[in-house]
Amino acid sequence: MRPEDRFVERLRQALSGRDEVVVGPGDDGAVVFSPGGPLVVTTDALVENVDFLPGEDPGRLGRRAVSVGLSDLAAMGAWPDFFLLTIGFPESASEELPLALALSAAKRGEEFGASLVGGDLSRSPEIFLSVAVWGRPCGEVVRRAGARPGDVVFLSGWPGEAAAGLAVARARAGGDRSAGGAGWTPEQLAVPDETRLLAAYRDPEPRLPLGRALAREALATAAIDVSDGLGVDAGRLARASSVRLVLESENLPISPALAAFAELAGRDAVEMALAGGDDYELLFTTPPDRAGRFSDPPPEWGASVRRVGRVESGDGAFLEEERGLRPIDDLGFDHFGVVR
Amino acid sequence: MRPEDRFVERLRQALSGRDEVVVGPGDDGAVVFSPGGPLVVTTDALVENVDFLPGEDPGRLGRRAVSVGLSDLAAMGAWPDFFLLTIGFPESASEELPLALALSAAKRGEEFGASLVGGDLSRSPEIFLSVAVWGRPCGEVVRRAGARPGDVVFLSGWPGEAAAGLAVARARAGGDRSAGGAGWTPEQLAVPDETRLLAAYRDPEPRLPLGRALAREALATAAIDVSDGLGVDAGRLARASSVRLVLESENLPISPALAAFAELAGRDAVEMALAGGDDYELLFTTPPDRAGRFSDPPPEWGASVRRVGRVESGDGAFLEEERGLRPIDDLGFDHFGVVR
Repeated sequence: MRPEDRFVERLRQALSGRDEVVVGPGDDGAVVFSPGGPLVVTTDALVENVDFLPGEDPGRLGRRAVSVGLSDLAAMGAWPDFFLLTIGFPESASEELPLALALSAAKRGEEFGASLVGGDLSRSPEIFLSVAVWGRPCGEVVRRAGARPGDVVFLSGWPGEAAAGLAVARARAGGDRSAGGAGWTPEQLAVPDETRLLAAYRDPEPRLPLGRALAREALATAAIDVSDGLGVDAGRLARASSVRLVLESENLPISPALAAFAELAGRDAVEMALAGGDDYELLFTTPPDRAGRFSDPPPEWGASVRRVGRVESGDGAFLEEERGLRPIDDLGFDHFGVVR
Repeated sequence: MRPEDRFVERLRQALSGRDEVVVGPGDDGAVVFSPGGPLVVTTDALVENVDFLPGEDPGRLGRRAVSVGLSDLAAMGAWPDFFLLTIGFPESASEELPLALALSAAKRGEEFGASLVGGDLSRSPEIFLSVAVWGRPCGEVVRRAGARPGDVVFLSGWPGEAAAGLAVARARAGGDRSAGGAGWTPEQLAVPDETRLLAAYRDPEPRLPLGRALAREALATAAIDVSDGLGVDAGRLARASSVRLVLESENLPISPALAAFAELAGRDAVEMALAGGDDYELLFTTPPDRAGRFSDPPPEWGASVRRVGRVESGDGAFLEEERGLRPIDDLGFDHFGVVR
């Protein structure tokens, strides 16, 4: 078990469960009973130099912080109502910085009907944003636990593009020695590819319409949003469900833009798709008799959805390659150790 | 208007108000309608070197972060249900640090029936904690707006003790040059005084039972929790209510411990009470015909309550001294400028 997951496990064991808490720490969000029905709540933080590069446009940052928080709700099959925003910002900044952060966050929330209702400001050496979002399930709450052997594994979007976008942003900022050393520059990418990769990193799209469909139509037995890396998050879903998740190498969606970047930078596109992180796509499992629903996803879901693997009895997450099964549950970002 | 308040004002003007949002940014917490009734939500962050000293015991920090969040709910006359906790912690720390923070936070919440249901972890150069709490009003929500000319002003507890406790903690940590320069050491304080001041700073008591009584018995026309300083927070209540708040110098509660510290350190106890901050006491206004309720507060309120002033028509917050009225709405901490 990875340090971050071990932390959550130790915390869960130490906490006394209350009846009103349907899902506590360890899922994408928490679900609590309230007199008016279940609430789904979640919180996410972005920290300068950890989750984003210094000098990032505040208008982008506030938007991204909200998108990241909403992605957790999407994975639970919930729709947001309102959110709180905490901003830490350095003494050197004027009030324009937190205002730009807050306004871009508020605007992003409004796109999904989620109001910014309050927050807190604090001085801090680095910029950080912490978003807490509340919403309601659109049907039965979708959890990480629930996948069953025989289920089909689906993934939205194009994993690894965000990681490539981060590498491009770093190279553009002149901060990536490895880029210089590898002898590539972002200018060597076709403009549409570079634009697409940067957007994947800087402006992820919370898969709320897809998550809503999963909950409303009871299409998913389990789901997780891919934030730390497809491999590690597949491993989390597998562990929560007590099953084995097998991703099939030939079905892993590798976008042309990612392939172009990988070739330019001398990286392995599949490894980037598995370990990249920051994707904010939904990985979910579906009973075989419902899998047909995804052969032609309606446009209002707003995302491509692709069958990427299968659920078996056993444990762990694996990539099935020509030479056999390779464990992937360690491929990704861990807030306790691996530096992105 | 102070920069922090101007920020909130600009943000409020830019946000489109939704009917479900009863109280948005600018009060101690937000109030939103949910199908089961109103929810009161609030968030607060503590940042190392800004809100606490480096090396602080994590068991104390987690507890304090929750207390600070609960204090906002107390000021609204609400009782907490659940909270989320985001922790930023440095790479050098093991998982024991966030675990100690989270467990002490969870334990503090449980004292008031508030469960820790989720959170987020992130690497960060400095430790920070962000708590998002939600609960339900115990009666009519108490806001900063609502004070009327003729109302009586009450304050719980002993303002300025926390500021003195911070000075003592700094001197103990050897980090306060002014303490050395002024030629005092914490050892010169009587042990009970030092203990009391340190506790006021490190372990504030959220005034939830008092806040509940204010809401249940409709005793307060307006309330605020004193977090940035009695002066500035009195000014905020006055502005929100469009009234003048007059604190009466002779009725300002100065504890013997604060008086002893002020004498030792060559500081003015009244100035510390007005500008200190971190008090987490409730400042509230009461119609004159209800003021008698506070002549002998029941022990279950858990706090001393003292009449400290009056509400008049006009604006601003003032201290009435022998020589006349002195504006105090600028006395306190501002996250945009003044360094504590």
